[in-house]
Amino acid sequence: MRNDERKINSLRPVKITTNYITHPEGSVLIEVGNTKVICNASIEDRVPPFLRGQGKGWITAEYAMLPRATEQRNIRESSKGKVSGRTMEIQRLIGRALRSVVDLDSIGERTVWVDCDVIQADGGTRTASITGAFVAVVLAFGKLLEEKKIKHMPVTQFLAAVSVGVLPDNTEILDLNYEEDSQANVDMNIVMTGKHEFVEIQGTGEEATFTADQLQTMLNLAGEGIEELFAFQRESVGDLADRIGETIA
Amino acid sequence: MRNDERKINSLRPVKITTNYITHPEGSVLIEVGNTKVICNASIEDRVPPFLRGQGKGWITAEYAMLPRATEQRNIRESSKGKVSGRTMEIQRLIGRALRSVVDLDSIGERTVWVDCDVIQADGGTRTASITGAFVAVVLAFGKLLEEKKIKHMPVTQFLAAVSVGVLPDNTEILDLNYEEDSQANVDMNIVMTGKHEFVEIQGTGEEATFTADQLQTMLNLAGEGIEELFAFQRESVGDLADRIGETIA
Amino acid sequence: MRNDERKINSLRPVKITTNYITHPEGSVLIEVGNTKVICNASIEDRVPPFLRGQGKGWITAEYAMLPRATEQRNIRESSKGKVSGRTMEIQRLIGRALRSVVDLDSIGERTVWVDCDVIQADGGTRTASITGAFVAVVLAFGKLLEEKKIKHMPVTQFLAAVSVGVLPDNTEILDLNYEEDSQANVDMNIVMTGKHEFVEIQGTGEEATFTADQLQTMLNLAGEGIEELFAFQRESVGDLADRIGETIA
Amino acid sequence: MRNDERKINSLRPVKITTNYITHPEGSVLIEVGNTKVICNASIEDRVPPFLRGQGKGWITAEYAMLPRATEQRNIRESSKGKVSGRTMEIQRLIGRALRSVVDLDSIGERTVWVDCDVIQADGGTRTASITGAFVAVVLAFGKLLEEKKIKHMPVTQFLAAVSVGVLPDNTEILDLNYEEDSQANVDMNIVMTGKHEFVEIQGTGEEATFTADQLQTMLNLAGEGIEELFAFQRESVGDLADRIGETIA
Amino acid sequence: MRNDERKINSLRPVKITTNYITHPEGSVLIEVGNTKVICNASIEDRVPPFLRGQGKGWITAEYAMLPRATEQRNIRESSKGKVSGRTMEIQRLIGRALRSVVDLDSIGERTVWVDCDVIQADGGTRTASITGAFVAVVLAFGKLLEEKKIKHMPVTQFLAAVSVGVLPDNTEILDLNYEEDSQANVDMNIVMTGKHEFVEIQGTGEEATFTADQLQTMLNLAGEGIEELFAFQRESVGDLADRIGETIA
Amino acid sequence: MRNDERKINSLRPVKITTNYITHPEGSVLIEVGNTKVICNASIEDRVPPFLRGQGKGWITAEYAMLPRATEQRNIRESSKGKVSGRTMEIQRLIGRALRSVVDLDSIGERTVWVDCDVIQADGGTRTASITGAFVAVVLAFGKLLEEKKIKHMPVTQFLAAVSVGVLPDNTEILDLNYEEDSQANVDMNIVMTGKHEFVEIQGTGEEATFTADQLQTMLNLAGEGIEELFAFQRESVGDLADRIGETIA
Repeated sequence: MRNDERKINSLRPVKITTNYITHPEGSVLIEVGNTKVICNASIEDRVPPFLRGQGKGWITAEYAMLPRATEQRNIRESSKGKVSGRTMEIQRLIGRALRSVVDLDSIGERTVWVDCDVIQADGGTRTASITGAFVAVVLAFGKLLEEKKIKHMPVTQFLAAVSVGVLPDNTEILDLNYEEDSQANVDMNIVMTGKHEFVEIQGTGEEATFTADQLQTMLNLAGEGIEELFAFQRESVGDLADRIGETIA
Repeated sequence: MRNDERKINSLRPVKITTNYITHPEGSVLIEVGNTKVICNASIEDRVPPFLRGQGKGWITAEYAMLPRATEQRNIRESSKGKVSGRTMEIQRLIGRALRSVVDLDSIGERTVWVDCDVIQADGGTRTASITGAFVAVVLAFGKLLEEKKIKHMPVTQFLAAVSVGVLPDNTEILDLNYEEDSQANVDMNIVMTGKHEFVEIQGTGEEATFTADQLQTMLNLAGEGIEELFAFQRESVGDLADRIGETIA
Repeated sequence: MRNDERKINSLRPVKITTNYITHPEGSVLIEVGNTKVICNASIEDRVPPFLRGQGKGWITAEYAMLPRATEQRNIRESSKGKVSGRTMEIQRLIGRALRSVVDLDSIGERTVWVDCDVIQADGGTRTASITGAFVAVVLAFGKLLEEKKIKHMPVTQFLAAVSVGVLPDNTEILDLNYEEDSQANVDMNIVMTGKHEFVEIQGTGEEATFTADQLQTMLNLAGEGIEELFAFQRESVGDLADRIGETIA
Repeated sequence: MRNDERKINSLRPVKITTNYITHPEGSVLIEVGNTKVICNASIEDRVPPFLRGQGKGWITAEYAMLPRATEQRNIRESSKGKVSGRTMEIQRLIGRALRSVVDLDSIGERTVWVDCDVIQADGGTRTASITGAFVAVVLAFGKLLEEKKIKHMPVTQFLAAVSVGVLPDNTEILDLNYEEDSQANVDMNIVMTGKHEFVEIQGTGEEATFTADQLQTMLNLAGEGIEELFAFQRESVGDLADRIGETIA
Repeated sequence: MRNDERKINSLRPVKITTNYITHPEGSVLIEVGNTKVICNASIEDRVPPFLRGQGKGWITAEYAMLPRATEQRNIRESSKGKVSGRTMEIQRLIGRALRSVVDLDSIGERTVWVDCDVIQADGGTRTASITGAFVAVVLAFGKLLEEKKIKHMPVTQFLAAVSVGVLPDNTEILDLNYEEDSQANVDMNIVMTGKHEFVEIQGTGEEATFTADQLQTMLNLAGEGIEELFAFQRESVGDLADRIGETIA
Repeated sequence: MRNDERKINSLRPVKITTNYITHPEGSVLIEVGNTKVICNASIEDRVPPFLRGQGKGWITAEYAMLPRATEQRNIRESSKGKVSGRTMEIQRLIGRALRSVVDLDSIGERTVWVDCDVIQADGGTRTASITGAFVAVVLAFGKLLEEKKIKHMPVTQFLAAVSVGVLPDNTEILDLNYEEDSQANVDMNIVMTGKHEFVEIQGTGEEATFTADQLQTMLNLAGEGIEELFAFQRESVGDLADRIGETIA
């Protein structure tokens, strides 16, 4: 039995609130247990210099935490004057994952800025960010469709992420909360698409290693969890769900 | 009639949600019209170097906006690698204001970190931050009282802030929203205490000047508005309201 | 009686040396008591990006202190690699104040860089900077007039600044020196125009508050002091004084 | 057939030169095809603040490239004033991997600084860095053993890393060179121990996804490649190979 | 004949104003032609970390220019967030030169901060800084002597600096002004002691080279010029001149 | 007799390995005793902004050390976020020296980036960098000649550098190793051309001074040493040696 009485293959309660903030083209508050992340997708009508003149778009992500999202207050990265290695890793991961399911050629010279701001953290903030950001991006493109700035939904398939891990007693578990994450020997983040293919696997055993069998069990758990997340996403995006994949039809 | 149909001396709707986030000792979401600020107060059991060994405490504030809190997305200050002059001005103002109503000698060598994070902006973010932060600070001290770490509520009186201004047609108005603020000839922020005294007056006419009469009208409007804000604060802090001022009794 | 034997409504001795340095278009050394500030106004024939192509000009200010302008040596901001919040507040204030009395539409796409460098500090450095910078700016425009680059003096009215405050014994005083400033309960900086209107009021009571009556007394003292400062400025700018306001005639 | 005529499961030629530089406790030049990395391990007799007084050690890694290690010259990170996200990711990976096979409790309050400096890059610089750094660390500990500063070899097992990937024609390949890496749909870095367990799996499909079958094929290829790398490492560390694992005997 | 009608071996007019600013222990305004530098020496009662506990002192120098000291306005180094290579070179030179004539063992654990701030530049700012800083340092030590904090003047001999160069017509000249410096093929800065020995020679021919004969002529010119500078210094330090060298008597 | 048994006028063993790294247009490993520097010259087909449109080229240099090139590990400048004063001085010196022997007008709008990376340090790293960089630059221009992008070798004469110094026993010596450099009273770096003229003289006596006689002896020693270095360079550049000077023929 886990510290919050979940089964080893249970997600924490998931709640996705859409249109959370007024200004962004797509805005979502995603809650996964006590982890709460505001995911905003902003459309900008230009692309970074390395893409100019190619007629295609870009998606980039930024990630941050409020200083007191965690048990101990953290110093703001703006005060430190630089972004930490952990933050960079996470925002690169989010951007890469989202780009894998968007047909960037079909959105014109636009940048989608995805901002994931963790207001409360209890483990799994990067995977919740990806899962929530996917919804925000679909909603933002929904707005472009509505305004007839693009003709087809450029999102090619669903995308969600979850963490899995191995506890010191060798139990493999799904969706680690902060306490579990602190104890786990292995921590793995999996990003998958609606076609059950992998986009990203990041598994790390800092003070331990893991076997091929453990890897397989973790991948199976992740597959189950992500399937459930797709259902929450599908509900959140409403009718836009049916348009996903239309650019590649 | 104003752009949102308010009277010249009307505040926008105010809502203060307490215990908004789990981890901070005091946590508040304050909404003033469409302006929404998360105000968290965190207690740290030590003081900055310049105060060590003096047996007294400190309050400091930080302020930030989510990138898409505004109509146009702003670059994160962490990405720019430095905090803007505007941000510095605001966080210095918040800290100074709060320190004026806390008996720092009575809290021991503790620092109260006040984090004001604007998640949606529609004018008046600095004054909403002060008004909300006051509640967060009272709640944080309430927790210290409960844990018997301090004996008396160190807050000496109520404190709230509001903006006033002069429109191009020379009307003085209370609590400017973003559109009004953009048009106003004069923008003034007033911080007052429960004893109707001033803590801070910051009035600026960048493309205009203002007369002594206009100043007087603005001060009166501010006094009325702040009186209403005290009522919202009083309700939010509950029984702790009665303990305000007890260190100076 | 004050610590330097002045009356409560007396300014310290004021001296404005014009053409202090060779290169700048306008250069002034202003001395207010022991406070000494070099104010240089430089004309650059272009404007910042946000103004390009609009045919109008800009004024911006920078402020700094020599490391040993003060009793204790301060670390250079260039060595620290960043400008402090205090410096930013002051340079934003100086720029805003000057822009309020210059007709930026009439100077073409030019930037006036105002550099206020405090070589000796004894309180009131920001107000001395504004008062001196005004003269430097008038002289710089005088040079443009002489070179026939502009047709009219773009300065619309006189502008000066002074500090006022409240001592612990509740005496309101004019033009605080450093020792008075350190003791004062309230510190207020007032910027006014030749038409006796306010451009900026910044009043702060960090460890104290102030009443409406005290505010009124301080505003009156400031008005008197600024009137005297106008006389010094008028003398310094010579014949150019008569051209002030001609663009709005 | 691959662009350099290798088989899909062939490593490039590997060469490890030990004692490459004089000063470091352990120094290695590792060449994997045209990729050349200097890996230096330096022992410092103290630990970072968060570990002080606990009697245990730490390993940390830094990674950099000479500006012209690559086809196009890159701007130095020292000139840019900050370390890129890519560099941070890589150095965090190297440090984490090495810490997983060192018994930090047995080395006293010492830090091992591992510096991986790429002097020539042709793909796989991060995996070559890990493989080479392992040897440098063993040599550095060999020196501590020789000087009788520690009693047992604190390295618990062998550790090496290799890249695998999927080409656009869906061939899975081992040890990608730069040209292959640029074309590949999937890029995966695998770190394994001498016991054939995983320490780290990082697989990414930026413009593509990968199936469970492809993952399995890649993991098998990596296992084969890493086995060969262990042989090179074993030869390089000489007699010290037999002492690996002795702290856990 | 030179552009300012000087002879090839003539210094520009030199003027040293002592006690220029109130707060520093030693303060000097040195004018060499149109070059004007404020040189302040501040005594701090502690030394940098690398010297603590050794009972000896340290001298360090900082150098800066007002933005409009030059014909074109320069961006402040505090705004750029870093000190330029040129500034670093100059301040390292000034510090090194002064340390060569001060008996650091005899001043206790004190640091002398020397601040050279150029308020007007017309060539030779670094040599004027050294010549003026020497006087400021002697005056600062004079104050320590007066306060009986040290027993002997720790300055061991006089020290001054001058520039020499070669014009395009191959004339060697002394004390280049800005226009000469811009044209010169060779620019050399010489620092010498009262015993006619060299402390520093820095000669550079960016677009030209120089022969051994030219070098000799330049060294001779420098020797003559520095001899004159010693006379100005001697006059400025008054009776303290006689105490120079007493620690080595 | 010196600490490494050399005579006072002996260079350490010199070895120049050409084509050390694949990618750069010119690449050299220079070894002077135990000092080892990789010198890479990269040609970029554009010039810095201040030169654009003038049809001429530029040479700039950067210098760095591997963290453990020295006895004690140094913190990377990229981690510190800024380049040290020492590094700036050295890279400015290298660039200036190389520019003095290249006809920049004849290379079109190209920049030569010279990267000197010290992989092992034992004194004299800046002079070895200049001597090695000269060869790398000649080789890079050789490549441009081969590709017929330029018609004439733009290098006008040979250029090499060496250090000289004065030991505490007043012996003048050539080519100081690290231990000698640490003890020396005077440290001087000399850059000379194939025509035996000076490009740069930088002599410093931090804790000592030097006489005109000592200067002369050091200059003579340097001249002898540089003559030997020219022979090593001549051999390294092969047939290109004969083309040096052809633009000025």
